[in-house]
Amino acid sequence: MAYTVGIQAAYGDAMPAHVNRRFLLKVRPTGQVGPEHFDYVEEDVPSPLPGQALVRTIYLSVDPANRIWMSDIPSYIPPVGVGKVMRGVGLGQIVASERDDLRAGQLVLGLTNWQDYELADDTLNEIPFTPLPEHLSVPLTHTLGVLGFTGMTAYFGLNDIAKPQSGETVVVSAAAGAVGSIVGQIANLQGARTIGIAGSAEKCRWLTDELGFAAAVNYKEDDWTRQLDAATPSGVDVYWDNVGGAILEEALPRLNLEARIVLCGLLSQYNSFNADAPPPVGPRNFEQLLMKRVLLKGFIIFDFARRFPEAQAALADWLSAGKLAHHETVVEGLDRAPEHLSDMFAGSNVGKLLIHVGDPD
Amino acid sequence: MAYTVGIQAAYGDAMPAHVNRRFLLKVRPTGQVGPEHFDYVEEDVPSPLPGQALVRTIYLSVDPANRIWMSDIPSYIPPVGVGKVMRGVGLGQIVASERDDLRAGQLVLGLTNWQDYELADDTLNEIPFTPLPEHLSVPLTHTLGVLGFTGMTAYFGLNDIAKPQSGETVVVSAAAGAVGSIVGQIANLQGARTIGIAGSAEKCRWLTDELGFAAAVNYKEDDWTRQLDAATPSGVDVYWDNVGGAILEEALPRLNLEARIVLCGLLSQYNSFNADAPPPVGPRNFEQLLMKRVLLKGFIIFDFARRFPEAQAALADWLSAGKLAHHETVVEGLDRAPEHLSDMFAGSNVGKLLIHVGDPD
Repeated sequence: MAYTVGIQAAYGDAMPAHVNRRFLLKVRPTGQVGPEHFDYVEEDVPSPLPGQALVRTIYLSVDPANRIWMSDIPSYIPPVGVGKVMRGVGLGQIVASERDDLRAGQLVLGLTNWQDYELADDTLNEIPFTPLPEHLSVPLTHTLGVLGFTGMTAYFGLNDIAKPQSGETVVVSAAAGAVGSIVGQIANLQGARTIGIAGSAEKCRWLTDELGFAAAVNYKEDDWTRQLDAATPSGVDVYWDNVGGAILEEALPRLNLEARIVLCGLLSQYNSFNADAPPPVGPRNFEQLLMKRVLLKGFIIFDFARRFPEAQAALADWLSAGKLAHHETVVEGLDRAPEHLSDMFAGSNVGKLLIHVGDPD
Repeated sequence: MAYTVGIQAAYGDAMPAHVNRRFLLKVRPTGQVGPEHFDYVEEDVPSPLPGQALVRTIYLSVDPANRIWMSDIPSYIPPVGVGKVMRGVGLGQIVASERDDLRAGQLVLGLTNWQDYELADDTLNEIPFTPLPEHLSVPLTHTLGVLGFTGMTAYFGLNDIAKPQSGETVVVSAAAGAVGSIVGQIANLQGARTIGIAGSAEKCRWLTDELGFAAAVNYKEDDWTRQLDAATPSGVDVYWDNVGGAILEEALPRLNLEARIVLCGLLSQYNSFNADAPPPVGPRNFEQLLMKRVLLKGFIIFDFARRFPEAQAALADWLSAGKLAHHETVVEGLDRAPEHLSDMFAGSNVGKLLIHVGDPD
């Protein structure tokens, strides 16, 4: 990749602090997302005006939602403008502040975006930056993963939509992913029987051997639907969907009466969100939503902002009690962000995928 | 149709009381349902055994669900067996009883099925027969329509799922049908702004001029989606779906955040529920369920049996106060039931479609 070589050749590991490396959206993808959809630029570090603070990116979260935001499909948040900085959730540190409520040195969560420096400005940021507690007793990365949006997504989706009862069967797609791996464990803690669907034998072993899933099915095996039948002899009471598409189509006919679907993601569909193509068709077996009187709820974590402390407290309790295993895949360097996003759609990572951009002071 | 001519030629209007005319499912349809999927037979009238009562059919309700029951798609009730009597909801009268809780002369609602006589037997009937109140102050047909499953479907779907708030926009498909026409009026009574989608200019006029819909759109006109845009300038808060397919696909992108979909029927899909064909694809724009955090709930009236009195009381109040207009299309003769079902899918009827089979004693 030309820009990677360029960055490395120019600076190696010694990026000058006055340069703001940024990835801009070059063109809306018409299929699989890749580096060709981004422009790399170097700009001056902005200076905060009154009411603003300067945030330096420490970790950048790589999420399937990144691909949604690159398309112009109607969404819960406006698409990233072509020529604008790529949107991304991250952990940053305040390095200069003209705001009364933020001071230099503080760690903050928010939309750092795909760059070294962002201005924290509630009138400009699509989601306000929120400071982390002063004395953090967990690794920083957890605040973007198991204790962050990822873990809270699992918490609210289960507590507010799925409401699994003891003994019910919960099936989770992309179960070895950031959200799915937490969903299964919380459902287990709630007394449900949890079945994971994932894309490799290793991921499936991790789910059953380390995370306590009752069974895991590798959807890349030819007989995976028969394996799913065998793993769900009493049908499916809760289907947590992160992927949509063919796996959703197989889940629908297995649903029990009054089953619940938490529609958390449609990973398999995002690469077909193309500017010029018609939208993809919906899942076969859609009529099962009627026949089985299913409750389906679309769900975005940002809606629960006022209740974040409740989720964070519950997750922290489980974590400190050793009841919540989790995995973080931390990769180095902002400069390869486009490749990391592309790799995520190929199923490369287990658990939460984070890019380490810099270290806090 | 040979059997119609045969019946009329043999009996005219003077069907002997000892004959039980029946339509049996001959073969599962592989497309549009029609007379060719039924066998007409004449059998002896059965005699009730202890614990049974003999019910004579007075009115038979023709419903889109009839077509579901003819297919072997997994449903909320087993499919009608090939060679078995066609399933249908009806109003009947007890003509002989060996049950303590039912006596000759009583009127009952239940699965009379497509025949003159059924045995009321709680151990055999898929839905138990329930007696009507002794002194009925409304026409008999209302008990199958506005005060029956039809009206109660509208009532529970709105009260328990859609929960329209004052000023919200409610869009109803098949709005001139039995359920849709009641849905729109109750939503109006609840303060919502109601938009109907129907299949002819006459139906649309009926909705706006007689039933108080704020607007109605004829989906058979070329520019109907632009008409729908014009009718929903503030988007759609509740979409009541009776049809699925292309109309659902157009509703999805117009949904507001936290919109509710009452999935009551999929009329446009039923004729593609074929024994040998793959299931139809789902609706395009399915991803809007995620993007807009939509609540979708599949919904079958039989689930609300314990709360029928609540709905019947509310509907009777509105009806007697003149707040609920409704239309019944009553056609004559059991012998043309297959054609009437076929015609319903072509959109021939307005409001509730009933077959008059006989008169009560």
